[in-house]
Amino acid sequence: MTQASICTIGDEILIGQIVDTNSSHISQALNTLGIKVTRMLSIGDEHDTIVNALKGELSTNDIVIVTGGLGPTKDDITKTALAHLSGTETYKTDERQLEIIHKLLSARGLDVLDINRAQASVPDTCEVIPNKLGTAPIMVFRFMDDRFGHPATLYSLPGVPFEALGALEDILEDIRKHNSISDIHHRTIMTYGIAESALAKKIESWEDSLPEDMHLAYLPNPLTGVRLRLSIYGGVKEEQEARIEAKLAKLRPILGDLIYSEEDDSLENCIGSMLRKAGLTVSTAESCTGGTISAMFTSVAGSSDYFLGSVTSYANSVKTGVLGVPAEIIAKHGAVSSECVAAMAEGVRRLTGSDYSVATSGIAGPGGGSDEKPVGLVWIGVSSAKGTETYKMIFKSDRKRNIERFASSALNLLRVKLVNELK
Amino acid sequence: MTQASICTIGDEILIGQIVDTNSSHISQALNTLGIKVTRMLSIGDEHDTIVNALKGELSTNDIVIVTGGLGPTKDDITKTALAHLSGTETYKTDERQLEIIHKLLSARGLDVLDINRAQASVPDTCEVIPNKLGTAPIMVFRFMDDRFGHPATLYSLPGVPFEALGALEDILEDIRKHNSISDIHHRTIMTYGIAESALAKKIESWEDSLPEDMHLAYLPNPLTGVRLRLSIYGGVKEEQEARIEAKLAKLRPILGDLIYSEEDDSLENCIGSMLRKAGLTVSTAESCTGGTISAMFTSVAGSSDYFLGSVTSYANSVKTGVLGVPAEIIAKHGAVSSECVAAMAEGVRRLTGSDYSVATSGIAGPGGGSDEKPVGLVWIGVSSAKGTETYKMIFKSDRKRNIERFASSALNLLRVKLVNELK
Repeated sequence: MTQASICTIGDEILIGQIVDTNSSHISQALNTLGIKVTRMLSIGDEHDTIVNALKGELSTNDIVIVTGGLGPTKDDITKTALAHLSGTETYKTDERQLEIIHKLLSARGLDVLDINRAQASVPDTCEVIPNKLGTAPIMVFRFMDDRFGHPATLYSLPGVPFEALGALEDILEDIRKHNSISDIHHRTIMTYGIAESALAKKIESWEDSLPEDMHLAYLPNPLTGVRLRLSIYGGVKEEQEARIEAKLAKLRPILGDLIYSEEDDSLENCIGSMLRKAGLTVSTAESCTGGTISAMFTSVAGSSDYFLGSVTSYANSVKTGVLGVPAEIIAKHGAVSSECVAAMAEGVRRLTGSDYSVATSGIAGPGGGSDEKPVGLVWIGVSSAKGTETYKMIFKSDRKRNIERFASSALNLLRVKLVNELK
Repeated sequence: MTQASICTIGDEILIGQIVDTNSSHISQALNTLGIKVTRMLSIGDEHDTIVNALKGELSTNDIVIVTGGLGPTKDDITKTALAHLSGTETYKTDERQLEIIHKLLSARGLDVLDINRAQASVPDTCEVIPNKLGTAPIMVFRFMDDRFGHPATLYSLPGVPFEALGALEDILEDIRKHNSISDIHHRTIMTYGIAESALAKKIESWEDSLPEDMHLAYLPNPLTGVRLRLSIYGGVKEEQEARIEAKLAKLRPILGDLIYSEEDDSLENCIGSMLRKAGLTVSTAESCTGGTISAMFTSVAGSSDYFLGSVTSYANSVKTGVLGVPAEIIAKHGAVSSECVAAMAEGVRRLTGSDYSVATSGIAGPGGGSDEKPVGLVWIGVSSAKGTETYKMIFKSDRKRNIERFASSALNLLRVKLVNELK
């Protein structure tokens, strides 16, 4: 089995200023190719440290993926270390990357400085995969087996997460080309509305029925719910996929509408597909979620087809003045109430002319709670021409996590309403 | 200088199912004590892998902190490996931990099973610090200098983040007691509105003037700009802080209002502080940013003091119908125009009654661009009683990153307007 190590370079990680999320994405992708990640390592921006650590990783792995340490400023010395490691002191300029650097900087109205140009210069021992999303090129060093006792490849990726993810696509292609890897066959099931432990209990006997070579993973996420991933390594594609499908056929009736997608999908995208197909529109009215649901909807390219707009009514004056919530409702029941979210949902539907709407009002914390209305309490309203329903939920997390759960719960309630009304 | 390594044990990290956040918290804490974290390492749940990796870390570090691998189902592996590493096969039961295990489980209405009881059993070569928050005890192994050429201490912490953070408090006390540690002195400067490379160019001669022992790090982030961190290890606190301050005094006039904070801060929090102090309010009108700026404002606890609300006017009908943008403006100049964002900014100020407002209209991509108005183009409007100004910017990233840069640029323009008008 092909083995890989992921190595992150940068003092900012070692001092705890940044959490390394790249390694997790890279290892997920390598796993999908059936490559085993044996180690993840973070080291600082020091020449000898980099050279020695990478020698160690290369001596026990087939593939070493390095991220970070390639910024234009002085604290980044990865490139010199990679030159040293690969036994050269000579550099070459990659014209394709230089062109990208010019394009990226001029698009932002910036001059191309010497330190920018220097980023297209790489050790002459490497192959370059141009980085279309940033200025630092992707470098590939291939070592023959006389160097580490086995053939080994080092990929150097930029550290900025968005560029690293883009670069990952390119190096996966290169890895596929140069390694004999056994395919992994897998399917993903997205669920929302059930906690991981309750889900495990619910599908316990189904899970016990899975054969030895079929692996089930639970991947919980506050924004997308619990993702189930069923996988098998190796074997004939068609046969293995049929075996997985046979198992899924038995899972579907157990979970019902807890399942919202059988692809790696988000609630906002799933709702968007339903709305687009039905030619319907949606809007949101948000208090405690503060625009988060609106931002989730509009994160989807093409969402202008069905998403009309949103009102963040943080102040009560905006709830009454813009959304038309009757002041008596707030005076009598408070802003965090069934009556208020119903009026908000109906108000934004009236205001924007959308077919559907969702509204939130709650207490994200840390302050502002009471015995009767504690931190973590949220009221959610969903509305359409067929009626308006409200739901009360309580979560127990910090402000950020509470807002995420409020928002994704609201999206899920809207999804269930759509599923029922579009039947 | 005392050196430390942080080692995470668990297959769930290597397959990318979980992002390791413990290491970041631990390294922050060690840094504050002036302990240099040289490496962070993640390895799998395998006996030999654990023994060999920990030998390596102990041979080059004074302190090794291990997290994870201590759950009731996995503890055989990590604990056996630690026993093997420390040269014993004999175990002892820690009565204090056993008592905690009984308390924790009975509070949750659970029986104490053999696998739970086994968690209080540890190699007889270690000292135990009871874990009050969970069932797995904290183990401390002290190695004399005959073993790794220098005295070395290994701390084994549970992997559950909430328990690891609790355990961290306890081991920091132990570390303080057993090591002569030099403090780290540092200051952070938040900048926005200048790219990392341009910033490096702008402060080049200042940076060249820094003494050898003073380290500067650049930490770019699309939402918060480039953070500068100036640090020195060791020495007398007052003297070193005075040396750093003397250097910062020369940096401030070079950067002017590119600096928005001298603490680890965000634009939305910085604006919030200014507004609260001045008793002023703000609202947002968002097209391409889709509620992102509103969500950023409301991510700050207490933002209801100054943030009134927001309208996401994704559809043009919401721009005209809710925000009161004249239909002629959209017909003549388009929704992505100086005229439109000015009318949006003024409209939301009128609608909510806020003192300040910020508006965005642009093309986040990937589709929807033209030669004249390409993907990545954004118009930003900022408005107050003193006037409305508009700005045009172009970014070249993917949809998500473009939206982030649109939003943070808008916040920064609002910040600069506030700085100027509140003088």
